[in-house]
Amino acid sequence: MFSSEVREKWLRTAESLKPELRMHRVEPVRVVAIRHNERAFQKWEVEALPEDSGGVDSLTAKQWGRGESFVLDFGEYLVGRLEFDLLPAGTVDAPTRLTLVFGETAAEIAEPFDPYCGLLGRGWLQDETLTLETLPRRIRVERRCAFRYVKITVVDTSPAFSVRFSGVMCEQVSSADWGGVAPLSRMADGDIFPADILEIDKVSLRTLACCMQTVFEDGPKRDRRLWVGDLRLQALVNYKSFQNYDLVKRCLYLFAALAKEDGEVTACVFEKPLPQAGHTNILDYSALFVNTLLEYAEASGDWRTAAELWQVAKRQMEIVFGYVNSNGLFVDPGTWWIFIDWQEELRKQTAMHGVVICSLAAGALLAERLGFSGEAEQWSQRAEAMRRAANEHLFCPQRKLFMSEPQECSKAQISWASQAWMVLAGVVRDAEARKLMRTLAVSPDAVRPAGPYLYHYVVDALLYANLEEEAMKLLRGYWGGMVERGADTFWEVYDPEHPFLSPYNSYIMNSYCHAWSCTPAYFIRRFPKTFSRKNVHKLQSRGRS
Amino acid sequence: MFSSEVREKWLRTAESLKPELRMHRVEPVRVVAIRHNERAFQKWEVEALPEDSGGVDSLTAKQWGRGESFVLDFGEYLVGRLEFDLLPAGTVDAPTRLTLVFGETAAEIAEPFDPYCGLLGRGWLQDETLTLETLPRRIRVERRCAFRYVKITVVDTSPAFSVRFSGVMCEQVSSADWGGVAPLSRMADGDIFPADILEIDKVSLRTLACCMQTVFEDGPKRDRRLWVGDLRLQALVNYKSFQNYDLVKRCLYLFAALAKEDGEVTACVFEKPLPQAGHTNILDYSALFVNTLLEYAEASGDWRTAAELWQVAKRQMEIVFGYVNSNGLFVDPGTWWIFIDWQEELRKQTAMHGVVICSLAAGALLAERLGFSGEAEQWSQRAEAMRRAANEHLFCPQRKLFMSEPQECSKAQISWASQAWMVLAGVVRDAEARKLMRTLAVSPDAVRPAGPYLYHYVVDALLYANLEEEAMKLLRGYWGGMVERGADTFWEVYDPEHPFLSPYNSYIMNSYCHAWSCTPAYFIRRFPKTFSRKNVHKLQSRGRS
Repeated sequence: MFSSEVREKWLRTAESLKPELRMHRVEPVRVVAIRHNERAFQKWEVEALPEDSGGVDSLTAKQWGRGESFVLDFGEYLVGRLEFDLLPAGTVDAPTRLTLVFGETAAEIAEPFDPYCGLLGRGWLQDETLTLETLPRRIRVERRCAFRYVKITVVDTSPAFSVRFSGVMCEQVSSADWGGVAPLSRMADGDIFPADILEIDKVSLRTLACCMQTVFEDGPKRDRRLWVGDLRLQALVNYKSFQNYDLVKRCLYLFAALAKEDGEVTACVFEKPLPQAGHTNILDYSALFVNTLLEYAEASGDWRTAAELWQVAKRQMEIVFGYVNSNGLFVDPGTWWIFIDWQEELRKQTAMHGVVICSLAAGALLAERLGFSGEAEQWSQRAEAMRRAANEHLFCPQRKLFMSEPQECSKAQISWASQAWMVLAGVVRDAEARKLMRTLAVSPDAVRPAGPYLYHYVVDALLYANLEEEAMKLLRGYWGGMVERGADTFWEVYDPEHPFLSPYNSYIMNSYCHAWSCTPAYFIRRFPKTFSRKNVHKLQSRGRS
Repeated sequence: MFSSEVREKWLRTAESLKPELRMHRVEPVRVVAIRHNERAFQKWEVEALPEDSGGVDSLTAKQWGRGESFVLDFGEYLVGRLEFDLLPAGTVDAPTRLTLVFGETAAEIAEPFDPYCGLLGRGWLQDETLTLETLPRRIRVERRCAFRYVKITVVDTSPAFSVRFSGVMCEQVSSADWGGVAPLSRMADGDIFPADILEIDKVSLRTLACCMQTVFEDGPKRDRRLWVGDLRLQALVNYKSFQNYDLVKRCLYLFAALAKEDGEVTACVFEKPLPQAGHTNILDYSALFVNTLLEYAEASGDWRTAAELWQVAKRQMEIVFGYVNSNGLFVDPGTWWIFIDWQEELRKQTAMHGVVICSLAAGALLAERLGFSGEAEQWSQRAEAMRRAANEHLFCPQRKLFMSEPQECSKAQISWASQAWMVLAGVVRDAEARKLMRTLAVSPDAVRPAGPYLYHYVVDALLYANLEEEAMKLLRGYWGGMVERGADTFWEVYDPEHPFLSPYNSYIMNSYCHAWSCTPAYFIRRFPKTFSRKNVHKLQSRGRS
């Protein structure tokens, strides 16, 4: 599809854009205990040790021997490499053995990792064992870890000596430049923001910053790779905050250079040891490459890149449009993973139909801006035909909601995914869209989102339909719920009712700093007035009346 | 006692003699299984896997995933660093986690290390856990390990990939130069040696070579430090084989430079991170510093070093002689560790009395060679007075054996340690010495040696008394017993009746390549005719007649 010369050129472009990582030294702020508590999130809570136990400064004074351990809290979520001096007290007549456990959450520190029964590789869990032949030594854990807490256990010294710790710090790495981020407070036209909105914004940006490495990673603890679907959301937040356009550009070129033989963009790519395509294909992700490219060009003004990668975008549109039948309906070929959301019972045809429309509509805009007016017109018409088809075949007139697939109305599955994507695709607009989303809100049988990725699109749809109050409530309730449970970065998986939910049969394997969860800052910073105090108060009082 | 200028000069001399280590790449020879077998030494035996399972070459072809493991046999005992290529099969979408267990013996590979209840530091046990963020990778385990077997377990990859191993090798390190070792076969004046003698010699030299690093280590797996008592024995073998005089010299200067304030040589010193004295003091070891210095000068002809360190040697003599009372008897002050042997029930006064005589006698010789004839005479007379005292106070005329301390004969403890040291000290000589050792041999109540260190002095005493046959039997029986049990280096602890014996409450913590056990080669190479086939046959037929 694309010649190897072109691919190599794209790869060179991507590599030329690889950012230098910013290093920042962070010290732990306190020594803590992790206590079992039935009422705490995941049943473990972090408790500061009393002042007289000495805090971080006392580490150097204390001596640690066989089986002794302590837990450090760095006060914030970090991605980087741990360093410390290990000093002897006594005659070092044996190697020192340490284990380090790095935790994004308290539970990761407290729960044993083994025996491990998760579906993903055990290697993601962040525990390291060190054998140190001589002391004193400056120790640097070369593995890049993602954590707020670290538990250090002295497995053993010897009867002749114990050890002291000094100069513990994390060399934090990120390509995000906080200097470029406008303070949220300046955005509200003299008004201020409610405390929870400020906190949600901060946690969003921290989540994004931690994922911003030499690509936009999905999670700095686990997966650590670049996914199209996550990239789109990260890029949107990035345009409103760190404004690192080159990092988005690099990622777009990586996907383009590593596309499959037939031009299909793979769902994810790996950077190391050399850039390579992942073997996962997700149809909705491929489709949204088009939107990601358009939004990049709009935000950065870099239409040259858009022009250079237009063929890649167009190829994704051709691929997804290839699954649209003569009635204008997307039909699942059964050979692809269609993600939409983790929810197992969710039937995805309608949502995917909406994604395809969004992709084609973005492609039409892109073609128009690039001067391909004939193509623009063609894709625009196709999108419009699909909107009509949706209204004709996917809408249930009795329930006044979209079904998950063409179906007898009485047997239809109703889901948040379907309604959100129909709104985002412009199948229904304005008053009709508002009515749809309000009907959905009072449909308890509707299949709800299972995770942040779909919640993002639901909030987006609500704002698209001008349902400010509902969007705000959902954002404050869902992401605010994570903050209430102690999140200082947003999570890959969050269901308020199921704290141990995991797609991987291991909730400690979940990523607790996950890119697709970082979008509240995008909404807040895109519509600052909506989230400002005055408006929040106004909407609340309207809600009460 | 010694000025800091002098100490610093000695330390500089020691450092200037630090050898460059020889590196040698060794590949594993086979893939093996470790099987439980009640009749095997320590109940584990090594079994070669059948040819069709592929051997070492198949490692590269096979793919290994979660929980899979294999055991490599390097065919000989090695000290060094393991290296291998870890290659991916599939898409590397997670870190790879490996554990490596290095074993001197089969039991170390098979027995779990944890929970660990040993008395010494758990860090000595050689297991390493690696988390590898990307593949392919050349892995080098920076910890220096001592092993013949290594078990590699793939704790996990991920469902998307497995791993292959290639280029497994050990970068072996030693300061021993095998090129300088005369083949034993040339030493027998046209005769040849029995197979077991050849094997015992080979195992002895391998033991020594593995302990020869930048100092003479006592054991390359555990302790890894320089002890006076071990040094003396290593040096004796070294003079007959590798002839690395500078390494002995370096060790002598280290002990001298790091002697305690009062001039006492500590039992051991550490090299890293900077040379420093150990806090262990062993009186018999301090005493034998004198012998070690004399033997070094005699072997190397380097009497300048002997002259420079004479004050250190003399100080040890003064210290030990300080515990000799007016009757000429050594009296245990109770403030020292007197080692002699691990045997718990052993009472050590007589043996230590013999050690002191040996020390003073060596000092007298040293003084004479250095031209201090007055001092030589004085120390010689003191030694002679102690011999008389031993005959007067320590000999039991009824049993015709030495008691372990001045005692009523009927209540006396009889031990191999006491008789051996009385012979070595020249308290009895020639026919009397032979009678003593033969009487001992038919005294079943005599406390036997517990380990190789004392067995060395017993063999030495037998040869000293011209009891060729008995010396040979003991050497072939004791060290040959280790060979029969699979040793390819000689052990720190060996009691044929107690395979799980350990001074550390953990037999896998024992060192299975231990310097003090390497002396058969010294005896064989010092008296090649004695150990040659003709003589062995002659002695055996005499034994039968």
